This record gives sequence, C-alpha cells and structure tokens, in this order.
Amino acid sequence: MTPEEFRAAAHTLVDWVADHRSRIPSLPVASQVKPGEIRDALPTHAPEQPEPLADVLADLDRIIVPGITQTQHPGFYGWFPSNAGLASLLGDIASGGVAGLGITWQSAPALTEVEQVVTEWLRELCGLAPEWKGAIQDTASTGTLVAMIAGRERASELSEHGAGLQAVAQPLVAYTSPQAHSSVPKAVLLAGFGSENLRFVDVDPVAYAMLPDALAAAMAADVAAGKRPAIVVAALGTTGTTAFDPVAEIVEIASEYGAWVHVDAAMAGSAMLLPECRHLFAGIDGADSIGWNPHKWMGTILDCSLLYVRDVDHLVRCMSTTPSYLRSAVDDDVVQYKDWGIPLGRRFRALKLWFQLRLDGVEAIRARLRRDLANAQWLADAVAAEPDWRVLAPVDLQTVCLRHEPPGLHGEALDRHTLAWADAINAGGKAFVSPSLLDGRWMVRVSIGAEATERADVQALWELLRATAASCR
Amino acid sequence: MTPEEFRAAAHTLVDWVADHRSRIPSLPVASQVKPGEIRDALPTHAPEQPEPLADVLADLDRIIVPGITQTQHPGFYGWFPSNAGLASLLGDIASGGVAGLGITWQSAPALTEVEQVVTEWLRELCGLAPEWKGAIQDTASTGTLVAMIAGRERASELSEHGAGLQAVAQPLVAYTSPQAHSSVPKAVLLAGFGSENLRFVDVDPVAYAMLPDALAAAMAADVAAGKRPAIVVAALGTTGTTAFDPVAEIVEIASEYGAWVHVDAAMAGSAMLLPECRHLFAGIDGADSIGWNPHKWMGTILDCSLLYVRDVDHLVRCMSTTPSYLRSAVDDDVVQYKDWGIPLGRRFRALKLWFQLRLDGVEAIRARLRRDLANAQWLADAVAAEPDWRVLAPVDLQTVCLRHEPPGLHGEALDRHTLAWADAINAGGKAFVSPSLLDGRWMVRVSIGAEATERADVQALWELLRATAASCR
Repeated sequence: MTPEEFRAAAHTLVDWVADHRSRIPSLPVASQVKPGEIRDALPTHAPEQPEPLADVLADLDRIIVPGITQTQHPGFYGWFPSNAGLASLLGDIASGGVAGLGITWQSAPALTEVEQVVTEWLRELCGLAPEWKGAIQDTASTGTLVAMIAGRERASELSEHGAGLQAVAQPLVAYTSPQAHSSVPKAVLLAGFGSENLRFVDVDPVAYAMLPDALAAAMAADVAAGKRPAIVVAALGTTGTTAFDPVAEIVEIASEYGAWVHVDAAMAGSAMLLPECRHLFAGIDGADSIGWNPHKWMGTILDCSLLYVRDVDHLVRCMSTTPSYLRSAVDDDVVQYKDWGIPLGRRFRALKLWFQLRLDGVEAIRARLRRDLANAQWLADAVAAEPDWRVLAPVDLQTVCLRHEPPGLHGEALDRHTLAWADAINAGGKAFVSPSLLDGRWMVRVSIGAEATERADVQALWELLRATAASCR
Repeated sequence: MTPEEFRAAAHTLVDWVADHRSRIPSLPVASQVKPGEIRDALPTHAPEQPEPLADVLADLDRIIVPGITQTQHPGFYGWFPSNAGLASLLGDIASGGVAGLGITWQSAPALTEVEQVVTEWLRELCGLAPEWKGAIQDTASTGTLVAMIAGRERASELSEHGAGLQAVAQPLVAYTSPQAHSSVPKAVLLAGFGSENLRFVDVDPVAYAMLPDALAAAMAADVAAGKRPAIVVAALGTTGTTAFDPVAEIVEIASEYGAWVHVDAAMAGSAMLLPECRHLFAGIDGADSIGWNPHKWMGTILDCSLLYVRDVDHLVRCMSTTPSYLRSAVDDDVVQYKDWGIPLGRRFRALKLWFQLRLDGVEAIRARLRRDLANAQWLADAVAAEPDWRVLAPVDLQTVCLRHEPPGLHGEALDRHTLAWADAINAGGKAFVSPSLLDGRWMVRVSIGAEATERADVQALWELLRATAASCR
C-alpha cells in the first residue's frame, strides 16, 4: 500500500473510529455472541487478491464490533477500567507512522529517550523518589515476571550465569497475598520456583491486606527449613477488593532476608497521581520494583505498563545480551531497553503517553480520577444505606465490592442468587459487572472508572442493581 | 478527548503519516543524533494543561523523526527487514478504535476468534500441517521463552507444579547453534536452566548450519553425565547468515530423548509463503513449536510474532490461571489465549494481519518476497564476480554476507577496514548495513527486504559499497 493509498483509506478509517466511539453508549456492554460465531462468519482461506476497504469496514461493523465487550461504555464496571483514551490512540497512530524499531538505542534513539523522559515525568507525577528508573512493558504480568526473575537472580547470586535454579543450595521462596492478581503465582511458576515454594500469606479479614506478622512467620519458617526468602510481591490495590498490602512493613521484614520486594500496583498505580491518595502507598520507595498500568484507569490505550526498578544494573545483568550485530560505538553512553525486559524488538509505546499527557494535560487526568473516586464513594454510601445490601470491603479507590443479602439466603443459595442477578445484569446489555469470590462466597465487583462513566450512570446502575436483584428473587 | 476532537486531530495526523512515509527516501537512513540530544530537547516535567496538536506534530518533525533509524527507507539493509506496511497500520488503527481488551474469550470474542482465523490462514499459507495451532506474541524473544518453559516443563514433568527447577533429579539441558539469535541463550537463562546447562552445538564451516552428529554427541554426553536433554532450538534462518539448521535430523535426534524442538524462524518464516522455499524448512512439522515474525520481512507492523505449537494442552498446563473474576460459563468451549503466553491483557493484534492480508492480498506479498530473493541473488552474483570481494555464506534467502578483502589485508587490519567502510556507509545516510562477527572476523550483512527497496536501489548500494570501501583504503 502506497502512502497515498494509505492517506485515502486512513481518512475513511478514522471517521469510522470516531463514529464508532460515539455510538458505544448505544451498544450492549457485554458481547452477546456465542462461541464459534465469529470464526464461522469468516472465510476459511486468506484472500489471494486485494479486497476493497469498504468490505473490511463493513465486516468491522457486522462481525467485529458485536464480538467486543465494550470497555469504553459508560456502563462498563467489569474487571478493572481499561480506558483506551483517544489522545493516546493518536500517539499509537503516530508510533505506527514513525515506524520506529526499538532493538537498541541506535535503532531508534528517540524511542529510547522519549521513553526515558515520559517514565521520568510519571515518576515525578507519582511522587516516587528520583532513584526509580522506568521502562514500558506490555502488561503487568510481564513486568511481574521480570521482577520475579530479578529477585530470583539476586537471591541466587546470578545463578543463571551458573547452574541456574538446578543446583541451588537453598531453595528460593516467593511470597504474596492470596488476593494478589493471578499473574503473580503465574510468574512464580514461569520463573521456575515451583508452586511448593510459593507462599500465600494470610490477609486480615476486614481490609484483606497482607498481615506482616504472618509474612515474618512464613519467612522464618522457611529459613528454619533451609530455604531462602527471595521475593515478596506486595499488592497495592488487589484485584478482588483493591486492598493495599502494608508495603512499609513488608519492606522491613523482607530486608532482614535480603528479599526483593516487588509492588504490583497495576490498577491502583494511577492513584499515585493524586497527592491525597499517596498515603495508601506509604513506604513504596523502599521496594525494589514497582509495576503499574497507565493502560488501566489512567486511560492510555493498551498496552502500556510501567516497570520501575531501583537497581537497574542488577536488572541489566539478568537480562542483557550483546551480540555483535547489535553493537554500536555509543553502547556505554546510552540506555538499552532491550536489557530491561524480555523482548528485543520494542514498539514506540512512549508516544502513547507523550500524546496523552500533552494533549489531555495532567490536570484533566487528575480531575477524572477524582470524579471516579467520588462516584465510588457515592455508590458505597448508597449500598451501605440500603437494607439487605452490603459493602464487603473498604472502598479506598474506585471499586465497590457488594452483595445483595436478602433475609434467609445463605451459603450456596446466596451464591446462586448473586450469580443470577449479576448474569442478568450482564445479559441485559446496559451494564457489565464482574462476579468474584471473596472468602469463598460470590460477590459482585463494581469497578468504576470508564472514561465515559458519569455520576448519572452510576446512579442508573444502582437502580438497575436493585431492580435486577429484586426480580431474581 | 471526545470522538469529535479525535476526528479532527486524526485527519491531520494521518496526513502527517502519509506525508512522512512519502519523504522517508529523502531522509538519512541511520539516525545521526547524539546520546542525550533528544532527552535534552524535551521538557523536564509533564504538562499540566493541554497543548495544541500542532505543537506535538511539530515536535514529531523536529525531534522524533531525526531520532529514528529509517527501517522503511529503500537504503535500509540493516539487521533484518522490519517492514511497517501501511495496510497493517490501518489494522492497528482499527484495533485502537475498537479498543478490544483481550484477557479472556468473554472480554472480546472477536479478538480471540479473528486471531484463530488469521493464524490458521497463515498456517495454511506456510504449508504447515493442520495440527499446528497459532497465537500472536509480541516478539520471537517472548515466543522462544514460552517454548523454553514448555520444553522445561515437559522434561521435568510439570515441575512448576511441584518444587520447580529447584529439586530436579536430572538437570535439564538446552541446545542451540552459536549462530542462533541472542534471544535463545537469553530465554535459557530466564527460564532458569543456567548457562552451564546451555550447549552451543557446532555448525559446519561452510553453511553455518548445526551439525546433527555434534548434537547427538552433546546429548549423549549430557545423558552420560546424569543430565536430561530438555529442548533444542533449531534456527531456520540464523541472524548472522540466514543459515538453516537441519530440522528433520534434529527432530529425530531430539525424539530419542523426548526433548522439545523449537524452531526459531523469526526472519525466515516469511519464506514459507513461497512454495519454492519450502525445501529449506523440510521436517519442520516434526518440531514441537515454531516462531516466526510477520513483523519482519512479511511486513506486518511491529509487533506481530507468531508462535505455533502442536500440543496446546501441554502449553496451557504450563501457562494457565483461572481466578474467579475471569471465569465465564463458556470457558470449556473456547480458546483462552491468556493461557498461551505470558501477558494476561492482549491487544487486538490479529487485525493487523487481517487488514494486511485482505487489503494487500497474498499474491502481492509473495511477489514482493520473490523480488527481494532475486535482488539478493543479483547482489551475491555481483559481489562474487568482483575481485577482492567475497560472499561469505550461502545466500539461501535475502541476506548477503560479504567482505571487501583487498590484497595484503588480514586479521585485525582487515577488521579495521571492514568496520571503517561500514561505518562510513552508515554515516553517509544513503544506506545502512549491519557489521557482524563471523568466525571471529567482522563482515557486513546486507539484508535486503525493505518494502521500498527495488533493484535500482540494490544496484546503487553496490556502487556505494565499492566506492566507499575503496575510499577507506
């Protein structure tokens, strides 16, 4: 395709995008398609000859859009916010237009240095200490795995440059909260620790935050058994209830054993932009690495996850490769992001952040986050004031964990009721919520923070929740 | 940013992209900026208030573009082709517009099922057996790490669900070619094997392909020493010289020990689209996993790397997580790509392939690949016919490894000459080539395959190489 063909097609396409984004409030939130329906609608073989753009765009409307759960919908309260802000989409388009290949500094100096600058901007905006250095990863899952490997290598004195994990004198152990995101145990397994060397440390029964005493006891028991505490993943903003593990105390305990502390703030990290929320992160500067996702609440379009580390030299020792074909004369003077993570080739993702921060401005981003916090407090207050409804966990951020508990309903019968009304909400197309287990019982997470969600939407949701739960009795 | 604000800005931006892509031939290929120059040109703090789009676009021209090594330039012969085809860029824009969140099938059924369809289209186009199932990864580095973990877990009987690599009875060993990409040893280290358990198997001195006898001997020696061969990474199209390891023989040897065979065809995989090149891949269907990158020679915009596996159930056992908040009623009936790799959240990358294949058509893609093969043969013939110039490795694909060897120049003096003229080429801005080590001596890789590169460009390059090398004497 030539630049002029692209020009014509792209003008048509961006109109399609603008039209599509405008109509999202009129679409069902959750995709209603059945398994295999989309596959069956597509040809079995690739086309030998070019097809017109109009046909492709028609298929977007006919096949693709109905197959998307609309995370940009004002009624989207599922999982966590996944805002795909349009200013950042412009940055992503620019990234594709510029076509930078990030394999070394030399291959695209701007790709490297803009990433240094925007991660530094965000470090400062988050109130993190100057020694943190950031890089963009695709997701927090990957960032957590990178941290897991960094922790493994520090505890094993760079065993990867010897016999690896296959001859460790003291087996390494990883610690996290049972409320941590599923990517944390996954990273433990992928990094080779083995599930037997993963400890889920108890949390308190009210705030669902890790109990420091339980962590200290677990570590002491492991040491007594000849094992070595290697890493703790503290969740700041757990997936279930946005609980905040006490990172200051965790850092203190971990430091006794030289264990790496990784902070998983994938969702909640955006709240560091608000000074009034910083108390939730007290002690974070003592950790060894921090991951958080602008591509969630802050609204940078997927994928854009930040990983900050303090000891970059150690990370590079774990991750570095320098084949002859990638050497250049300036290698000692520049950052080589290939050595800060898994992939060699990197997209120019920093442009997404650069465009978003410049075109939206930080003040507007903060205002939106504050709007969401207020909406969540409003909903929590409304739920708490309503007979037979309960808020199940502290609402420190924008997620309200709730349950309709009509008299006489307990145990599995209550579970059936919860899932029935949540499924009815999701099938109705006006809103989408995520049922989740808490203390072994189903509850419903209402995670406020879609860019389009205003107070009126949350009020309408609350009406819908009550009406639907009542009708499912 | 509202959809209408996006509409206005996006029209301006896509014109910028079309204009930029048109002017690339007039830009220097290699970025000429100095370390720190771009960082110094940017503000120290993020903007509190919105800035106009015009300012951002002006900075793209003033700061970003000069900081990019232009891989889309007709004079780009560095590393490997990294084509950012404009049809696939349209797909990427559509992906951002649609804003699909790929965490489960339920979150975006279309994202999952289009990925199933396009990976199946490409499987068929590549002549691979029907049992291969594909998924999109960001890069081959990541795909190789996933394969490494899959091989580790098969050889250790899912040790990750026990004590991990920390209590293996027989240490696991990985094998590859010294000509393999740097991501292969990196994956071995990241997966916890340790460098002591990585074997670089000898290659033959002419074709630089792995010697099967050497592999068999290495495996036998490891078994005799109480170790267990776990995985072989066969490079089909090595980074240095695009050598093809003999995968059929490697599969046969590996099968004696039950070792996983991963094929790294990151660059060369595109050649499977050409039936006349399939002989280079003979035996590939016996492997356990294959990685190749449409984002290189085929021209899909970064990032789009394919990982095919035969035993998907095993991969899922290694990678699966099913927290309650991600469960849905259809989980048993659908593919969950989160369990085929590291990240949970996935972009709708399949649209890049879908747009490219539909808007360009496969026939045009094949024609371009054939053009590049013919151009490489032309250059190889010209070099071979010229006194004092040598082609150093078989030209099976589109990369010509060459050296100017004037009489009397040997050893380090020859190295200095090689690097001097290569650096002069790259500093001149008309072309970009990658010096690389082969048998301990510097040579120059001319990797043909930028979408814009025609025969006349290659002829001009050959003039430039001779003139520059002569002037560096």
